[in-house]
Amino acid sequence: LRISELSRQTGVPVGTIKFYLREHLLPPGTPTGRNQAEYTDVHVRRLRLIRTLTVIGGLDLASVRELLINVDDERVSMPGLFEVVDRALFRDDLATGGGVDGGQARSEVDGLIDRIGWRVEAHAPSRRRLAQVLVALQRLDATCGVDVFAPYAAAADQLAMRELELLSPAAEPAALATRADRAAAIARTVLLEAALVALRRMAEQHHLADRFGA
Amino acid sequence: LRISELSRQTGVPVGTIKFYLREHLLPPGTPTGRNQAEYTDVHVRRLRLIRTLTVIGGLDLASVRELLINVDDERVSMPGLFEVVDRALFRDDLATGGGVDGGQARSEVDGLIDRIGWRVEAHAPSRRRLAQVLVALQRLDATCGVDVFAPYAAAADQLAMRELELLSPAAEPAALATRADRAAAIARTVLLEAALVALRRMAEQHHLADRFGA
Repeated sequence: LRISELSRQTGVPVGTIKFYLREHLLPPGTPTGRNQAEYTDVHVRRLRLIRTLTVIGGLDLASVRELLINVDDERVSMPGLFEVVDRALFRDDLATGGGVDGGQARSEVDGLIDRIGWRVEAHAPSRRRLAQVLVALQRLDATCGVDVFAPYAAAADQLAMRELELLSPAAEPAALATRADRAAAIARTVLLEAALVALRRMAEQHHLADRFGA
Repeated sequence: LRISELSRQTGVPVGTIKFYLREHLLPPGTPTGRNQAEYTDVHVRRLRLIRTLTVIGGLDLASVRELLINVDDERVSMPGLFEVVDRALFRDDLATGGGVDGGQARSEVDGLIDRIGWRVEAHAPSRRRLAQVLVALQRLDATCGVDVFAPYAAAADQLAMRELELLSPAAEPAALATRADRAAAIARTVLLEAALVALRRMAEQHHLADRFGA
């Protein structure tokens, strides 16, 4: 494919593709002339992944770069890859400090995760995020306990198990080790997160309209 | 409260508070001297709402401003307020065009919402977002249909109903008309969305570790 065709197939402007090439987010094409190069389906897929991460996932380029390095590095395990997703998606928050240390809330969150029985890295940004959310909820309503999260955790658990089936229908872990499958797994988790958020907003609009009139 | 005390109670730096005052995101305090003003709990709550929207919700200041105007405007209904949340949280995406028109995907999404029976504004950004997600999922796997969203919709429906109980335990719609309750409703939806996303990430990490080894 010429760069113009790559642009047409993905809807990404040529200028943006050149920017990604300069930033090494996209591997170079095969040179075919002084100012020309040939691109392949690998480039199409990589461009689509970048757009999914930025447009749907809202990631900045530094986070996209970190994720792509880990997608390409086959020494990184699948669980390790998803820890990077977790870190990448909370980067902004971590950079700005986030506001609370939340010692008490953090213990409550850790207790909840233990009771559910999830094995989650001790330093996972999601734990800290959940403690921040709990502190903020308790400021709105002092009686709010960590169990407010229980139905969300139950839903998350079910959806995560289902996603794992999508990832690996053949129940063949080795299949996930290829770069293309790792990239697809990352894209899918970002996409389904966006779907879940969008559906929750629609459900809220519906039930609010139902109760309060449209 | 003096501004220094307001800063101490909320963890927001004095310079940031002054910025919010200049930007009219925070109402002015009552002047008590040439360069001094007195602040109240109203300011504490408003500051915490702004931080929830920016730090947890990831909103930019333009979106925060639009939301606060609608929180303060009691002619805006609760469902209307949540439509503003939906718009505010997708602002970035709408500005950048989002990439797909997705006519076919959009019809499939509209069909799904109809089958579920949700009444959702025809122009809700969430519909468009879901269509974008479907297009991207189909690029990863051409056999993927809109029904991939069904379990997410079911979970979202249950969680939204539960949240409505949190919002209005006395089942008294009028109670939601006050500015403080409207602000709390907005904060709660942003916070619980963040909680759901964080819990889903943890569930994924757990189930991946379970299958692929940590």
